[in-house]
Amino acid sequence: MEKFTITITREFGSLGRSIAKELSRELGVEFYDRDIVEEVAKQLNLPVSTVSDEEEKSKHSFLPRMFPLGTDETYIQDIIFDVQKGIILDLARKSSCILVGRCSDYLLEKEKNNINIFVYAPYEKRLENCVNTLGMTESEAKRMIVSVDKARNAYHKKYAGYLPGDPEHKNLMIDSSLLGVTGTAKLIAEIVNQLYGES
Amino acid sequence: MEKFTITITREFGSLGRSIAKELSRELGVEFYDRDIVEEVAKQLNLPVSTVSDEEEKSKHSFLPRMFPLGTDETYIQDIIFDVQKGIILDLARKSSCILVGRCSDYLLEKEKNNINIFVYAPYEKRLENCVNTLGMTESEAKRMIVSVDKARNAYHKKYAGYLPGDPEHKNLMIDSSLLGVTGTAKLIAEIVNQLYGES
Repeated sequence: MEKFTITITREFGSLGRSIAKELSRELGVEFYDRDIVEEVAKQLNLPVSTVSDEEEKSKHSFLPRMFPLGTDETYIQDIIFDVQKGIILDLARKSSCILVGRCSDYLLEKEKNNINIFVYAPYEKRLENCVNTLGMTESEAKRMIVSVDKARNAYHKKYAGYLPGDPEHKNLMIDSSLLGVTGTAKLIAEIVNQLYGES
Repeated sequence: MEKFTITITREFGSLGRSIAKELSRELGVEFYDRDIVEEVAKQLNLPVSTVSDEEEKSKHSFLPRMFPLGTDETYIQDIIFDVQKGIILDLARKSSCILVGRCSDYLLEKEKNNINIFVYAPYEKRLENCVNTLGMTESEAKRMIVSVDKARNAYHKKYAGYLPGDPEHKNLMIDSSLLGVTGTAKLIAEIVNQLYGES
């Protein structure tokens, strides 16, 4: 099989991460998500918790503590993004893999054998997934859907210049409630096999 | 196999119609596109050419001639839409089929076993398709992409209340340049078989 990369950008509660995980098993290649956070933390010599899910936060409460001399937040977020970018490009160029979120769609769009996928779902299904699969209370789920979507949109817009669900930058956009986690992962695996498998 | 419907909404030059045609062969069910226009013309007792591709026109040049007493254009377009709606719902309820354009995504969204698909492609690929597959000159293709997209967007927005490429009303959105006409049709056929085939 040729070397390839898949990026998965997702709406909160659409189970995009679970799909990436299952796809990783299906194709026998790594998927990277929070591992990227750990690597960023290591390279910047910061605790993981302070870098954690930069993409999903609208505020950076750690910053005044970490940078007491008043370095501005945007600047620090830019440094984190730059380090993250280097890690994503390194991972993608080293071997076939699946990358979840963190503007990897934007970073890899021009790379050879890359497929950009957006996973979404109707609001009611996302709510159901949050409660039944991710174990949240309904009110917590409602709050998280709004706040994480908003933070991810802002983050993506800032660094990629477009919204995460823009078809112009995606090769496939799929409602995960159509085929479920396993069905969606199998469908994506089939596309990969068709494009990069032995013929 | 259970009864099902597939609607295909497409960007001009994305080869969505060719995909529908190949999918129809693949699944052994009818696909409807211009046949709908013919049926509308029959029911309204108008020449086919006058009803033709109402969705893709920004002006209705025939109307002053057909309705010399000054009946307004919007009203006539609404009549055509209503007749078309009845035909689409009839076809969809009678047997499994594939419907191309004409707000069928909006009309069938709430029906059982319906999948709404949006077919798109990057501008350069659409231009290439128009020239190499649809036999247009490059300047004709450029003009058509702009004008047909604009007309379809306006038509869809008017009758469905949202743009044709809105993920909220689509179960799958696919860039046809990823797998080509045959590959995309096969992928959709697999989804249909997985969901509605004998298990």
